[in-house]
Amino acid sequence: MNRYIEIDPEDYHVLHPRPAYLIVTKGRDGRLNVMAASWVMPVSEEPPRYIVSIYREQYTYKIVKETMEFTINIVGEEHAEIVWKAGTLSGWKTDKWKLLGLEPLESKHIGAPGVKGAYGVVECRVEKLIPVGECDLAICEPLRTIVRSDLYQRYGWDLRRAKILMHQRGRVFVLPGKLIIIPKGKR
Amino acid sequence: MNRYIEIDPEDYHVLHPRPAYLIVTKGRDGRLNVMAASWVMPVSEEPPRYIVSIYREQYTYKIVKETMEFTINIVGEEHAEIVWKAGTLSGWKTDKWKLLGLEPLESKHIGAPGVKGAYGVVECRVEKLIPVGECDLAICEPLRTIVRSDLYQRYGWDLRRAKILMHQRGRVFVLPGKLIIIPKGKR
Repeated sequence: MNRYIEIDPEDYHVLHPRPAYLIVTKGRDGRLNVMAASWVMPVSEEPPRYIVSIYREQYTYKIVKETMEFTINIVGEEHAEIVWKAGTLSGWKTDKWKLLGLEPLESKHIGAPGVKGAYGVVECRVEKLIPVGECDLAICEPLRTIVRSDLYQRYGWDLRRAKILMHQRGRVFVLPGKLIIIPKGKR
Repeated sequence: MNRYIEIDPEDYHVLHPRPAYLIVTKGRDGRLNVMAASWVMPVSEEPPRYIVSIYREQYTYKIVKETMEFTINIVGEEHAEIVWKAGTLSGWKTDKWKLLGLEPLESKHIGAPGVKGAYGVVECRVEKLIPVGECDLAICEPLRTIVRSDLYQRYGWDLRRAKILMHQRGRVFVLPGKLIIIPKGKR
């Protein structure tokens, strides 16, 4: 018999862990900035659309409003510290790109680059910003997606090799573990 | 030197794995229905808001439009087959709730129940439906959240015990694996 307890409905961690990403913007002055985000997901398949939820006080928000573009960088175990720092330092006060020693991976369709070494990079053009609570939903079109050829199979990451970084809470991240494959015929 | 390849920007699997949920609705006729969803996430903290992306052709969409409520059920390893079936059968043709032998966990604020045995249940009231591509974003307020007392710690699932189910692609699911904890002072 399972016992349930009620928790604060403001505790969104109930919907974690979820993948942690680096979002890269390039200001009109050419300055690169990076933020960490895990409130990112696909929302439509045809046409393809992704959403990134961005806190309106964030430096990234200011840049996105001006340029309406960014890259979503899919990262892994080896990027955990970068993600932690990108998520706890502020772009208003710090040149995070420089501090973290990141190198750009040039984009084809937008000004904002990817992060060299990321597992994958999605070049996004923001179609619309929709305010929800304290954040804006950036509804965006994925213009181009690149992935590391050693880590991606047809239709998805090879999770035996791609240690996709997921955020749990605070300083706690988690990597993919056991795979469950539903046998054919089970339907 | 990492080699990158370009993939179809329509391949949203680049943003997977992500948690897989059961969304439960109750029609005006009292009929319960369940769908699987992994395009679900928090989008604002204050006030708390979650989003579920729902394909407009789905049976669940019809019911949500009428009732503007549902539960999000957080599930684990032991629910993998239920999630697979809930995601591949259609509520238009099948009484999935009965077929899957689900039992309701009564809600406090809405008519739609949770699924008995789920790791956690969030009672949601839909505030707004926003069309994006072929889906509608159901922006919702979490009214009440319950979790299994043996699986939840302060601010999050105990991933050593809660085998949170995540969807990768098709028949492939994955569970949380290695934890990475950023040491204090790293900032």
